[in-house]
Amino acid sequence: MDASMINPFINATLNVLETMAFLKSVPGTPYLKKDDVAIGDLTGIIGLTGESNGTVAITFDEGSILKIVSNMFGEEMLELNHEIADAVGEITNMIAGQARRDLELIGKVFEAAIPSVVSGRGHRITHYTDGPKIAIPFETDGGKFVIEVCLED
Amino acid sequence: MDASMINPFINATLNVLETMAFLKSVPGTPYLKKDDVAIGDLTGIIGLTGESNGTVAITFDEGSILKIVSNMFGEEMLELNHEIADAVGEITNMIAGQARRDLELIGKVFEAAIPSVVSGRGHRITHYTDGPKIAIPFETDGGKFVIEVCLED
Repeated sequence: MDASMINPFINATLNVLETMAFLKSVPGTPYLKKDDVAIGDLTGIIGLTGESNGTVAITFDEGSILKIVSNMFGEEMLELNHEIADAVGEITNMIAGQARRDLELIGKVFEAAIPSVVSGRGHRITHYTDGPKIAIPFETDGGKFVIEVCLED
Repeated sequence: MDASMINPFINATLNVLETMAFLKSVPGTPYLKKDDVAIGDLTGIIGLTGESNGTVAITFDEGSILKIVSNMFGEEMLELNHEIADAVGEITNMIAGQARRDLELIGKVFEAAIPSVVSGRGHRITHYTDGPKIAIPFETDGGKFVIEVCLED
């Protein structure tokens, strides 16, 4: 999996959060996951097929997602609830959609499944594949989140 | 979504658990989910595309998955760990694969994404779709699990 497959997910994330939540997020250096576990409080997951089989997961800590959804809704959100889970589903859909459009421009066509949202303090996500698992950490002024992109060769 | 789309998932589940874990599980009546939340300790999720977009999630309580994996490994598993999560990934893959083969026999061709496994006591899974969400509860002599099948029209 080369950088040209990862950059569309980074760009889509920056773009969706800036457009939807007026939030600047700062991506860290992508790294190859070894322990293969993301830990967080809310995760959006969406499966991909087509060019290759894959999955994309976006795992937020409580601070980052409360900040994002507060900005989206224009009111301060104080706790993780059903509205926040819905927003994570929508954000996941939008990031996957925009990344897919960018990938299509370089000839990589993916289909996307339905996003699922996981709620639960300190849950862990493991992707069941022998392929590479790339994690991209992001910082916001509310907290952190991480995107994991797994695409089989 | 009609019964002919759900039965392959029920049959695959019964079959995979009997073949892999020598475990008889008893399916309850499938129901249309309204509150759209499954609560459990370990979940396998896999996205589907093709005939329609969808997602399948299998949410186990601790008792059911410890029993299943103990039977698979031939040794008593006492706690949820990395090996159990791997087994959930494998079970999810196998159930989706077998259901897809059965669906193909009735002319419904699906592609499957990479399964992801969620670990975390009492986590909740919500599927982000306007389409129907069908839940099928299962009983085993170790505990309960539920399969959720969401396929957009």
